[in-house]
Amino acid sequence: MQPTIRPAEQFDVRRGNLSVALRRLREAGPRSRARLAEETGLTKATVSVLVADLVQRGLLREVGPPENRGSGRPAVDYELHDRVYGIGAEVSVDYLSVTVLDLRGEVRARKRVGYDVPRAEREATLDALSQLVRETTSEVPGRPAGLTLAAPGNVNPGTGRVDYAPLIGWYDAPVAAPLADRLVDQLGDAALRVEVENDVKLAAIAEHALGAAAGTADLAYLSGEMGVGAGVIAAGRLVRGTRGHAGEIGHLPLNPAPAPCACGRTGCWETMVGLGALLSLAADPDDPVHDPQRDLEERLAVIVQRARAGDRRTLSTLEQVATGLGLGASVLINMMNPAVLVLGGYFAVLGDYLLDGVRREIADRVVAADADGCRVELSRLGFDAAALGGAYAALDRVFTDPTVVPI
Amino acid sequence: MQPTIRPAEQFDVRRGNLSVALRRLREAGPRSRARLAEETGLTKATVSVLVADLVQRGLLREVGPPENRGSGRPAVDYELHDRVYGIGAEVSVDYLSVTVLDLRGEVRARKRVGYDVPRAEREATLDALSQLVRETTSEVPGRPAGLTLAAPGNVNPGTGRVDYAPLIGWYDAPVAAPLADRLVDQLGDAALRVEVENDVKLAAIAEHALGAAAGTADLAYLSGEMGVGAGVIAAGRLVRGTRGHAGEIGHLPLNPAPAPCACGRTGCWETMVGLGALLSLAADPDDPVHDPQRDLEERLAVIVQRARAGDRRTLSTLEQVATGLGLGASVLINMMNPAVLVLGGYFAVLGDYLLDGVRREIADRVVAADADGCRVELSRLGFDAAALGGAYAALDRVFTDPTVVPI
Repeated sequence: MQPTIRPAEQFDVRRGNLSVALRRLREAGPRSRARLAEETGLTKATVSVLVADLVQRGLLREVGPPENRGSGRPAVDYELHDRVYGIGAEVSVDYLSVTVLDLRGEVRARKRVGYDVPRAEREATLDALSQLVRETTSEVPGRPAGLTLAAPGNVNPGTGRVDYAPLIGWYDAPVAAPLADRLVDQLGDAALRVEVENDVKLAAIAEHALGAAAGTADLAYLSGEMGVGAGVIAAGRLVRGTRGHAGEIGHLPLNPAPAPCACGRTGCWETMVGLGALLSLAADPDDPVHDPQRDLEERLAVIVQRARAGDRRTLSTLEQVATGLGLGASVLINMMNPAVLVLGGYFAVLGDYLLDGVRREIADRVVAADADGCRVELSRLGFDAAALGGAYAALDRVFTDPTVVPI
Repeated sequence: MQPTIRPAEQFDVRRGNLSVALRRLREAGPRSRARLAEETGLTKATVSVLVADLVQRGLLREVGPPENRGSGRPAVDYELHDRVYGIGAEVSVDYLSVTVLDLRGEVRARKRVGYDVPRAEREATLDALSQLVRETTSEVPGRPAGLTLAAPGNVNPGTGRVDYAPLIGWYDAPVAAPLADRLVDQLGDAALRVEVENDVKLAAIAEHALGAAAGTADLAYLSGEMGVGAGVIAAGRLVRGTRGHAGEIGHLPLNPAPAPCACGRTGCWETMVGLGALLSLAADPDDPVHDPQRDLEERLAVIVQRARAGDRRTLSTLEQVATGLGLGASVLINMMNPAVLVLGGYFAVLGDYLLDGVRREIADRVVAADADGCRVELSRLGFDAAALGGAYAALDRVFTDPTVVPI
């Protein structure tokens, strides 16, 4: 059993009970007040008050028509309303994207546009992103519960700032407040709930909530893009660290060769398995796979084609990257002991050519036998995982405290 | 805010409220029922029932004489009872130890005996340990709430087994049940609550609960003995991993030199900073500091003496170990982003000669500026930290669910 070593907080019982009722409906589906009372240990009278409150906030609605379950009055079932949604937005290196997820966990809208973030002014990027949020949500009936922005780099959710994101050139940059200002007319009081979080952490949340290994209490996620990062869920909770910077795995000194890294150090793990390392190994500088103007998924498709055709340089590159990936993955597994390791970003796209090598390396390097029971899986959420996780996190603030949505 | 992405569990409201009341008294000290009601949001009637229940279980008692606070009836204050205690026991490589901690967090008794665990039969070790538990608790009035055994290696608390502990030669060994069997007459129904946990994780719990940086929500602990391990508290909770094996940092491939490790690999971090590595660097094989018959603290005192006297070989060894320690510490900081890193075991004993080098290396290697705000501190709990953490964990099972102590 996990000892609760966190000091208890003084808590608002009613708020807690609203959350219990709402989450029960998320997990278990539509049900009557009587059944909710049974399952939560709350009295029927309390549950009636809670359900009425949640209906007034627009978070629940009656399921109609009621089934007649016995000889008495038919029991009315309640379900989560689909008219409340969370917004996830992502600033990546070369695109902006927005995903809208409703309270029931259905994706209602999704948009992505190419955008050269490192070359644009940050203010212009936030303008473009706000515009994309407007366009995407305009198709979705209902009202927003909040927005979470995913950014690539060190993010401090407590301050709403991006601390250090060299890939897009944002340093110590206020982000949550300026974005909320731009969207206040659109989001209403939900603008108070604009937050910013690291993209890999949000992708890990998406995997934990909605991915192939959803519900796994101890889950690690490794994202391969230009940078490499880890997101860890331990006992069902995202590991953030004191400033929100946990998971900085890309610059661990794991490369036996002193390859120079963009961070100024040498031998960082990113120099073995980052997208730049893969492309340099796989193709000469004038090869079209290096062209940053082309969509990344297209460029990766070229690599896959070459691998399928048996191209030796491509296959040897993938083998080398797989070994490097297994090396870092084993560090993550030794440190965190996850039940599942999900590979995302380009690792997932090229996964069929990487998995064997990764698993071999892990079997060698993880101290406990049998890779300590860790399964390695490929993400199926694609490059939109971070925005999806952002939308989920925005909704989760409602599930944690339903009173953030006013009556 | 930490999103609660763990699915809600159906819970027993009364049990939860008993826990809230008991923990409030732990954190805030003696207080009246009225004040408890105010602070917890529970009704006065509920608090009266809860307090009466906790008194019947022997967990609370009235503080006398009551203060007269106003013109009406004097309010009676309640406080945690000192007649309930948790037991922490430790099996180390060369000693057994037991610590008894009462519900208020006071150490009531502590014993340690030298014991050659690797050479003894496991059954004999458990016999000796049970005997030590009897002797230690015989001095303490009151009754036990439970016992946690600390063991050096991979432990699975879920199964009560030590999975892999090469330092003491225990592999896939049932431990919790055989120890409970030996102590059932002594512990009564608390024998049901004999658990086993990794020693470094328990030491981390002790640091988080009772050490110099107590209460720090994000805390990492590095223990240096023959093996090296990490214990991590993230957002106030111990990180265990799916099989309880998280924190296996000793065998990360961090040594640029391919030094052979006891695990069969080469270049493990332990080969740079384990006690064996330190001693080999510091002294020739026939030097008395290598003598396993001598108490470790004595041998370390010799090293400290030599360092004080300016012995060049000793000082250069300490510098080298400090650099290696900083290397691994930076991995831990990049991955977990703790607010405090506590160095324990021999790292604490030699800490005055290690800290500068460790901090320098961390400043270089941690990606975020200023070591990401991580303070490095030396443990003051000594080699008994694991047993102390075990006693705390045993009590924590009571604070989490007070009904485990029968009326």
